[in-house]
Amino acid sequence: MHIVVNGPIACEGLSALTSHFGDRATITPFATKDAAALDPAAFAAAEVLISIAYDSSMPPTPRLRLLQLPVSGLDSVDFAVVTAGCAVCNVFEHDIGISEYVLAAMLHDTVGLAGRNARFKAGSWVENPVRGGAFRRELAGQTLGAIGYGSIGRAVATRARAFGMRVMAVTRTPRALEPAPDWLGGFDQLDHLLAHADYVLIACPLNDETRGLIGRAQLARMKRGAVLINVARGPIVDQDVLYEALRDGVVGGAILDTWYRYPSAAEPEVMPADHPFHELANVVMTPHLSGWTEGLMPRRFAVIIDNLERLAAGRPLRHQVHLPV
Amino acid sequence: MHIVVNGPIACEGLSALTSHFGDRATITPFATKDAAALDPAAFAAAEVLISIAYDSSMPPTPRLRLLQLPVSGLDSVDFAVVTAGCAVCNVFEHDIGISEYVLAAMLHDTVGLAGRNARFKAGSWVENPVRGGAFRRELAGQTLGAIGYGSIGRAVATRARAFGMRVMAVTRTPRALEPAPDWLGGFDQLDHLLAHADYVLIACPLNDETRGLIGRAQLARMKRGAVLINVARGPIVDQDVLYEALRDGVVGGAILDTWYRYPSAAEPEVMPADHPFHELANVVMTPHLSGWTEGLMPRRFAVIIDNLERLAAGRPLRHQVHLPV
Repeated sequence: MHIVVNGPIACEGLSALTSHFGDRATITPFATKDAAALDPAAFAAAEVLISIAYDSSMPPTPRLRLLQLPVSGLDSVDFAVVTAGCAVCNVFEHDIGISEYVLAAMLHDTVGLAGRNARFKAGSWVENPVRGGAFRRELAGQTLGAIGYGSIGRAVATRARAFGMRVMAVTRTPRALEPAPDWLGGFDQLDHLLAHADYVLIACPLNDETRGLIGRAQLARMKRGAVLINVARGPIVDQDVLYEALRDGVVGGAILDTWYRYPSAAEPEVMPADHPFHELANVVMTPHLSGWTEGLMPRRFAVIIDNLERLAAGRPLRHQVHLPV
Repeated sequence: MHIVVNGPIACEGLSALTSHFGDRATITPFATKDAAALDPAAFAAAEVLISIAYDSSMPPTPRLRLLQLPVSGLDSVDFAVVTAGCAVCNVFEHDIGISEYVLAAMLHDTVGLAGRNARFKAGSWVENPVRGGAFRRELAGQTLGAIGYGSIGRAVATRARAFGMRVMAVTRTPRALEPAPDWLGGFDQLDHLLAHADYVLIACPLNDETRGLIGRAQLARMKRGAVLINVARGPIVDQDVLYEALRDGVVGGAILDTWYRYPSAAEPEVMPADHPFHELANVVMTPHLSGWTEGLMPRRFAVIIDNLERLAAGRPLRHQVHLPV
């Protein structure tokens, strides 16, 4: 089997691939992100391409049978240039990392450990209860509202339940899902979720249905003081109205891991949005890393290796993406 | 029933007591911590005293039938002056708050949200995976080692389990306890726990058996990089060797909510230990507030009111403390 491994993230799985396949595969890695460095001969021979991106800037792949993404997001695949006989599969396994990030975010907001540490380290006992320190909120009894109830939403719900949180969720096709939320609705019932959630979690894919799903009317529906968490894709939330709502206190706070602009070679430190979210004290922001944990790539490449074995044996592939018509 | 409510923390329950008992009780509050302001006549009449402290500096209480603490800690009760006919009860209900604090602490350590937020807000994408950002650890698969497996240890274990953590615990009397830890031992098996835990949680009472329980030999037993969490009482851990171990990297880090010195009127901003823990970057420290949540006092005074009704009806009291002989 001829396998091309393209890009630094795909190359995280090189040793797993090499040790699994040994002499059974010819594996050609390109760790660079520079398209000019790609060898057309390797691409011409490739039956499998493991790559986040796939577009016409890359050398032709006439023999390609499987484009295997080492990530879940399809954003960098130009489906118009995928040939009819080529399957496209993505991979998940980030639910552990992302759900830990989301609980860390909710507890950061509720317990406030970082700020309390800084103030006590500076020498003040003023937050001590005997000195009159204020009661803080509990996560127990608060409501998580998950927009999307796939592997990420459900992993967050499992953890939130252990804290005694109430779980509400909307999903495209409401059906029996574990853990069963306290309330489950369709996307058409989003307003009901928004009106009741203390933490609104965006955990759905970005597509034509979800782009701009959270606009001015939706933010206005949220409870005063509620916190928005976006670990999915920036453009699911309208950035202009989100910035205004946070600045003006319409929304209590936001924890944002996904963005509207990403760095490029030309702009390595691009501002992640059109507005200065970084100036807002009620925003916690990170550079799209919520799922990036030590366990991620070992789990992902176990799935990918299984998929390559399935391809070799002619068995059904896992996580095959339905191509847009 | 004559009830004296002594001190600002006990007075948090005044409205609950008043609205529950109405004309059935005479309730005399003293919100001050100044012993000179206490009215001897009220103390002389008191059948119930709700107070954290009880000692010979206070007016005599010849009719006292119940000393009801509004906290769990017995540190401020001088049992030598408690009369034979007087029951002493404490109260818990802080397991929700403390367990949220402990999970916040472990996730603060694992996810590092506060630091990542600060660095991204300063404009750097360097922690983005595509830019080469490092993988972080997962809480999943790590081992919690609870020293003490009472209501706090078990509340932490319930939450830790939902994250896929392994739970080890030592307790004075190993027996069937929910949730069942993956490994449960007696205090004589502490070394085994210390050698395997990634997070060592101190969650036992301070008494003659536990004072100085964690000394030089115990810290040396811990895994390199392991984190100590103390939400119980400072002196369970020897402060001299803890400071050295943290400074020298024998212990990876510590999250400390309980201390060796507390503020007094004379020293309101006393340093909480003999050593400058606040100078250590691997220490997160808070002023004994882990259980101090909005739900705490409503839950505690529901238990206290129930206890006062039990006293009035001659039924067995809840959480009666066994007096030292």
